[in-house]
Amino acid sequence: MEKNAVTPWEVSGEIDYERIIKEFGVQRIDDSLLKRFEKIAGESHFMLRRGIYFAHRDLNWVLDQWEKENKFFLYTGRGPSGKMHIGHLLPFIFCKWIQETFGVELWIQFTDDEKFLFKQDMTLEEVQKNMKDNMIDVIALGFDHKKTHFLIDTKHAGIMYPEAIKVAKKITYSVIRSSFGLDESSNIGSIFYTSMQAVPAFLPSILKNKKMPCLIPHAIDQDPHFRLTRDILPKLGYPKPASIQSSFLPPLQGANGKMSSSREESAIFLTDSPKDVEMKIKKYAFSGGRDTLEEHRRHGGNPDVDVSFQYLKFMFESDDSELGKIYRKYKSGEMTSGELKQITINKINEFLKEHQKRRKTAEKQIDKFIYK
Amino acid sequence: MEKNAVTPWEVSGEIDYERIIKEFGVQRIDDSLLKRFEKIAGESHFMLRRGIYFAHRDLNWVLDQWEKENKFFLYTGRGPSGKMHIGHLLPFIFCKWIQETFGVELWIQFTDDEKFLFKQDMTLEEVQKNMKDNMIDVIALGFDHKKTHFLIDTKHAGIMYPEAIKVAKKITYSVIRSSFGLDESSNIGSIFYTSMQAVPAFLPSILKNKKMPCLIPHAIDQDPHFRLTRDILPKLGYPKPASIQSSFLPPLQGANGKMSSSREESAIFLTDSPKDVEMKIKKYAFSGGRDTLEEHRRHGGNPDVDVSFQYLKFMFESDDSELGKIYRKYKSGEMTSGELKQITINKINEFLKEHQKRRKTAEKQIDKFIYK
Repeated sequence: MEKNAVTPWEVSGEIDYERIIKEFGVQRIDDSLLKRFEKIAGESHFMLRRGIYFAHRDLNWVLDQWEKENKFFLYTGRGPSGKMHIGHLLPFIFCKWIQETFGVELWIQFTDDEKFLFKQDMTLEEVQKNMKDNMIDVIALGFDHKKTHFLIDTKHAGIMYPEAIKVAKKITYSVIRSSFGLDESSNIGSIFYTSMQAVPAFLPSILKNKKMPCLIPHAIDQDPHFRLTRDILPKLGYPKPASIQSSFLPPLQGANGKMSSSREESAIFLTDSPKDVEMKIKKYAFSGGRDTLEEHRRHGGNPDVDVSFQYLKFMFESDDSELGKIYRKYKSGEMTSGELKQITINKINEFLKEHQKRRKTAEKQIDKFIYK
Repeated sequence: MEKNAVTPWEVSGEIDYERIIKEFGVQRIDDSLLKRFEKIAGESHFMLRRGIYFAHRDLNWVLDQWEKENKFFLYTGRGPSGKMHIGHLLPFIFCKWIQETFGVELWIQFTDDEKFLFKQDMTLEEVQKNMKDNMIDVIALGFDHKKTHFLIDTKHAGIMYPEAIKVAKKITYSVIRSSFGLDESSNIGSIFYTSMQAVPAFLPSILKNKKMPCLIPHAIDQDPHFRLTRDILPKLGYPKPASIQSSFLPPLQGANGKMSSSREESAIFLTDSPKDVEMKIKKYAFSGGRDTLEEHRRHGGNPDVDVSFQYLKFMFESDDSELGKIYRKYKSGEMTSGELKQITINKINEFLKEHQKRRKTAEKQIDKFIYK
């Protein structure tokens, strides 16, 4: 493993997105594509404008198909290894916007098998307990159950496994070894697993008996799965799924790696109290400010490395002019780190208050979302 | 691969059962175990008496449990790679006898995933067409659908895959490589597959919420799967399944290898006409007779290598005294090869006439056998 690794199971070190674009072979979302997308969508989304979703595969093709009235469907997923933090919401918030703007179906895969197979000490029961809690968080975002379908790998194995083996037959062990860094000591379920992750990219086409384009919004670390999926699907008679990749919401400690559920002090959880959030931001959020107030006023802070600012940029301040104002004030030294942190604390708590209220009624809706 | 190989995917060369017993680590069924089994069963079966089922693992334990009124269930399977020949019936005939004698449940796994994954050019649809035809053959043997349950790997993936991943988590790629000779170029479905074959050995215990002993009658080439299953199941809280191993019905050409569906001229199929059977036995069945009638009368034939005699011994002459008579007459030269072949032709055709009649009504019963 290299020091700065980005795989579906590890994100560590300083992340060089330029290098990732080259190594993974994805395309940067350039201005002309951005404009085309926004024109067809009829509106713009700050995650696109700000380059949080920064890369893609075949997004132009999805738009070509759209213009030919061949509607795509969305596919994204969640690995229920623990409770969800704010970073986990990026693809769901983004999918919800695309879903509402384009009026398309969204398929959400819950990979309980994956987390069971890759987490040595986790039982399937523990994973499934997390999964239920995660579903509540997803539903609380306000999805329309008529257009949003949950696929659970174990529960839907009856329809998924017969398709997964068709994918699996086209993938050798040596490909898995080089794509995912698995080895001789890896369990055979983990070796098989990527076949299951490929299925939602074509299952809706089977269920509706119509070959539809698939668009997968996901964090860049999942790309090795979908690269493989793209290799295989044409061999099974389906189009390559298109995808759109986000960067990682930084952990509280700063720009390296990604926010992680397994390090409590790196993450703000969706069930955190206002006091938790205040404490975590004040205590842990890496600051781009200067050591003393005097220096800060004189030289200004650095919003580009300041975690509180990044959270506003990634998720909590959708208004560009407002964000720009904060950027300039902080950079000039007019706004202190404490003031910036307080803005972020307020914004996150405002969001979580609403989210936690919605969680209370979400549990009862789970059944409506699970694909039947 | 060695010249005389016995693996789940290949049986070739001269088979040395003594060596297999040592290498596989199974126990020979000795006289005292045979007597104990027959005493508890209340009767004897020619396949046991004649050493066709020649080895076992933990059969004494199954009988111990039986005496403690902890009933076992039977598990056997069929890989639907093509139409069935007479050799495929060995485990089913034997299971039927045990089932009726002990009054136990029988679970039959149809491994459509396995055959799809291991046969490069076979589609899942082709495998499933074979499977339906194979089910008709199994049902035609006269099983009681109230005690006999078909598990189909793809159809029952909804209940099997969540259990298979628990098995898979305990098996590394390196174990699969050494147990089955799979390698870097093997597809990841084939690497995962043994996990699915393990499931019927404990699934009935889950479905009935009671940990029951499992007894698996099978041809010796399947032992690598069940050896692994035995390693894993105690780690999941289930008893090791017991097993009982048969030798192979020889191909028409003689003692090497096993009867194979993929070599038409090696096998007598369950759908062969009386004329097919007559032609195949007369033209292909390896004879233990002498080159000339004169020599045969003088020196006698060799029933131990004569394929027609072997078919009587394995399946078609259950009466020991009748078989003994044929043995002695052939060995002394009193019976010619032509006469022996005619006896075998008549016996097989008698069996197939009845079997093919039963096949006609069997198709309608498939639904009753598939586990719900």
